[in-house]
Amino acid sequence: AEIVVLPGDGIGPEVTRAALRVLRAVGERYGHRFTTHEHLIGGAAIDATGEPLPAATLDACRKADAVLLGAVGGPQWSDPQAKVRPEQGLLAIRKALGLYANLRPVKPHPAALGASPIKPHLLNGVDLLVVRELTGGIYFGDKTRGDGIASDLCTYTVAEIERVVRRACQLARQRRGHVTSVDKANVLETSRLWRETATRIARDEFPDVTLEHQLVDSMAMHLLAKPREYDVIVTENMFGDILTDEASMLAGSLGLLPSASLGEGQIGIYEPIHGSAPDIAGRGIANPYATILSVAMLLRHSLGLEDEAKCVELAVSRALDDGQFTGDLAAGRPAIGTDAAATAVI
Amino acid sequence: AEIVVLPGDGIGPEVTRAALRVLRAVGERYGHRFTTHEHLIGGAAIDATGEPLPAATLDACRKADAVLLGAVGGPQWSDPQAKVRPEQGLLAIRKALGLYANLRPVKPHPAALGASPIKPHLLNGVDLLVVRELTGGIYFGDKTRGDGIASDLCTYTVAEIERVVRRACQLARQRRGHVTSVDKANVLETSRLWRETATRIARDEFPDVTLEHQLVDSMAMHLLAKPREYDVIVTENMFGDILTDEASMLAGSLGLLPSASLGEGQIGIYEPIHGSAPDIAGRGIANPYATILSVAMLLRHSLGLEDEAKCVELAVSRALDDGQFTGDLAAGRPAIGTDAAATAVI
Ligand SMILES: CC(C)[C@H](C(=O)O)[C@@H](O)C(=O)O
Ligand SMILES: CC(C)[C@H](C(=O)O)[C@@H](O)C(=O)O
Repeated sequence: AEIVVLPGDGIGPEVTRAALRVLRAVGERYGHRFTTHEHLIGGAAIDATGEPLPAATLDACRKADAVLLGAVGGPQWSDPQAKVRPEQGLLAIRKALGLYANLRPVKPHPAALGASPIKPHLLNGVDLLVVRELTGGIYFGDKTRGDGIASDLCTYTVAEIERVVRRACQLARQRRGHVTSVDKANVLETSRLWRETATRIARDEFPDVTLEHQLVDSMAMHLLAKPREYDVIVTENMFGDILTDEASMLAGSLGLLPSASLGEGQIGIYEPIHGSAPDIAGRGIANPYATILSVAMLLRHSLGLEDEAKCVELAVSRALDDGQFTGDLAAGRPAIGTDAAATAVI
Repeated sequence: AEIVVLPGDGIGPEVTRAALRVLRAVGERYGHRFTTHEHLIGGAAIDATGEPLPAATLDACRKADAVLLGAVGGPQWSDPQAKVRPEQGLLAIRKALGLYANLRPVKPHPAALGASPIKPHLLNGVDLLVVRELTGGIYFGDKTRGDGIASDLCTYTVAEIERVVRRACQLARQRRGHVTSVDKANVLETSRLWRETATRIARDEFPDVTLEHQLVDSMAMHLLAKPREYDVIVTENMFGDILTDEASMLAGSLGLLPSASLGEGQIGIYEPIHGSAPDIAGRGIANPYATILSVAMLLRHSLGLEDEAKCVELAVSRALDDGQFTGDLAAGRPAIGTDAAATAVI
């Protein structure tokens, strides 16, 4: 399989390097050939080419079976007046590849409960999957700036809602059969369309799946008060951005959370949900587990290698059981570095 | 002083009735005359007049010194196809009275820590105030529905941002002098305008206040991971809706959180941040503390009666110290009803 690697900025290069060591170990153990090619994205791409998503990167991604991404962004590219920003590369590649479903599973590992701000008894048995719409909504609507005024347009079509709700329902079938659709239907027209469409898809195509609706403000509470009650949560782009970051606190550390961005085809982008963490970049101490777990999602969703995916997930879980903590998880206990964590998994 | 009371739906009538008993007790003790008049809003108004905000209600509010509101909404008015919804009454009155700054203080009481999903050691010393912009943004932009497509427009003007940021900075001056402005400036044009404007106002008019910027997704995490580090948080309408509900979990129960919606004049709307809780309506068990604390905010912000406000807050705090818990706070301990809680405060 052909895998494009986009290390990006900050700790991106370190964590993707560590995760690729794990991928190679999987290849050796199971007899697969994974070819990897590195390309530029984000701030690194801006510095080298002036653009956050160079054409060469996009071309390479289009031809690949899957993309492994580190992280983009950093203070040197954050001037609000700047015309080109690292994040634009990320938004542009999601859109160009049609990756409309962003899967963010949250299943706290016992070793990380100490690092979560949530009381441990609420976290026992939490196993949820947020499916965030990724190529529509206010992220991609018209943006205007006039004299003393600015606006952003949020638009959704029925087709955009249908496909992501369908994906959420399909995923729920392989899990506990429960989908919570999140919107703000008491205020927004796009949310009313979202709610009607979700209701119809679930009723007509997934009679075996239970669909429930929640307002985004209530969801922000319930996610903390009773996280165990959720299975699959599906929502629009902006709400998904906020709720997944909030949900990450259930897992104690952002450093354990992978993600997959999928479309209709085989290709997907796999990336940790954490950012580029410029403050610890280059020091070999970044937590690579989220990127390694993203490799597991890559094996599962783009390459159809379920056994291999499970094997990687089990290996990460064992490493944590064995106390192989990076600094973000250590909470006073001894900490290991990025490479040692990858070695523990291997 | 003239106070309009809008009991609304569900538990609204019960909690406002209890809070008015406290207001009358304050009047007797300090020798003030408070005249109160009840009017319709929300579902109750739809049932009686067909409209969620009857003209008589709005007229009365315009003439009053302050408005005390219960809650609006309920399942009988929640048909997504309905043309008139209770929430429209709330949005319309906020807009009509120009109440652009929604103040939501969160200061967990020790007695409620047990009910919070957050670990108690993180909550010690938490004392934050969210100032949510309340009459702009995507709530009030054009809403369109076409064939298979819907959209909502989010617009902000410099003037709208200036006045709410100014209010937040003024409030910070009376507190710890720290303001965190929340936006999504890496994606939204309105957020970039928000950030520029906030930066300028703080720099030019409030050199003594420290302004920090946070992206909304990071804020959703940090609010849980390090809530003690925040003082005043100012943000746009939709982000404020989500973040304040999330922040309410720091206080353990929604039942302890008051709010004030203010504009340039004296008048304000004071309401608990909880909803109409139709499931427990009419049973005399609803928690009235949030509405009573909203009366304290009314005394402070619309009537300028700071001592009286402090007295009410202290009385609520004492009632909780004495173990006067309603069901939502009891956590297995004996629970009292709505009236008994008001009596305890009085
Ligand atoms: C970097 C930013 C544009 C991005 C987003 O908001 O989608 C990030 O927060 C994420 O969640 O992947
Ligand atoms: C009822 C609803 C329209 C309202 C809002 O979103 O503003 C409520 O959630 C609130 O926060 O006061």
